Amino acid sequence: MAPKYKLTYFDITAFAEPIRFLLSYGQLDFEDRRFAVDGIEWPSIKPTTPFGQVPLLEYDGKVAHQSIAISRYLAKQVKLVGSNDWEDLEIDAAVDTIIDLRTKIVAYGYENDAAVKESKKKPLFEEILPFYLEKLEAQVQKNNGYLATGKLTWADLYFVALLQYFQFMLGKDLVENSPNLQKLKEKVLALPNIKAWVEKRPKTKF
Amino acid sequence: MAPKYKLTYFDITAFAEPIRFLLSYGQLDFEDRRFAVDGIEWPSIKPTTPFGQVPLLEYDGKVAHQSIAISRYLAKQVKLVGSNDWEDLEIDAAVDTIIDLRTKIVAYGYENDAAVKESKKKPLFEEILPFYLEKLEAQVQKNNGYLATGKLTWADLYFVALLQYFQFMLGKDLVENSPNLQKLKEKVLALPNIKAWVEKRPKTKF
Repeated sequence: MAPKYKLTYFDITAFAEPIRFLLSYGQLDFEDRRFAVDGIEWPSIKPTTPFGQVPLLEYDGKVAHQSIAISRYLAKQVKLVGSNDWEDLEIDAAVDTIIDLRTKIVAYGYENDAAVKESKKKPLFEEILPFYLEKLEAQVQKNNGYLATGKLTWADLYFVALLQYFQFMLGKDLVENSPNLQKLKEKVLALPNIKAWVEKRPKTKF
Repeated sequence: MAPKYKLTYFDITAFAEPIRFLLSYGQLDFEDRRFAVDGIEWPSIKPTTPFGQVPLLEYDGKVAHQSIAISRYLAKQVKLVGSNDWEDLEIDAAVDTIIDLRTKIVAYGYENDAAVKESKKKPLFEEILPFYLEKLEAQVQKNNGYLATGKLTWADLYFVALLQYFQFMLGKDLVENSPNLQKLKEKVLALPNIKAWVEKRPKTKF
């Protein structure tokens, strides 16, 4: 019997949800260890992590950190990678572009100072998001309805898994006015194993 | 004859230098197209890039973006990757940790507001850098003098290629008081093809 994966993260979607999507897509059995964002567990877990961060993925006595690195590893296990090195480069570039977008959304969403947050709002909603959405729309159109290589890859699961988190941060659905991205979202959420995961996962605010 | 690589970036080390290190390490012939950070070329190049960013790598009629994705692709070509998927996960996690550190250094280094920059100085120099350096020191010690997998990988080239940029941002050598990281730096810079590259590369301030 293959060893079981154990994922450790907060009780939210955010940076761990792409990992949960990939594990679910490949029907890899995993323990989904969760703790509250503001709870008493995290301060005792944090010092035991490699660099003070989660998610962690444990497998066969080994512990891995860094969510994108973990996602890429799982993508290889569930065969959502490219057919050659250049295709993997295209997939990695798509993921890194999603991360760039994520960084900008999170810098707004996690801003605690109301005045600073307000000052970040206009550039984000009127410049940054339209810029990325227009380019990502064109990219998905060019790639046969996917982010890279003309077929379903882990970049697509990575992106769609983050959309609930983006929705919470932005107060609206990132892709609501982007038909190609909307279709991609529906397609990924209709994959039977992803659909089953989303139905059974703990309901969280973000 | 194999097609030649063409790298497009500013006339600085920064995000392109790991790519130049990897191309040089593998003796892959490349055109090193550079333009000034504040020059007249960049505004005309920027709209032609996939997401308004450089570096770009061109090869055999194709264009790639995203520096980490490009570095990982080249690492496969020059055989500086892991022996299995878990080793590649460890290498990727090391690189992503270096990126986390880079993000914090750059947020300080590129801060234009003198008062804000000063307020970022103490947490960076007294908390963030010591935290990362202590953990990276231990990681290199545990991994036989390298960042991951106990042997030379692209994570090591990635890290060392960024040190000149970090030095400029911080006003001091990041690894000067970290013996394991210092030794790693010396070891990478002593690799014959890297040594030859550093000797012949254009001299830039950062």
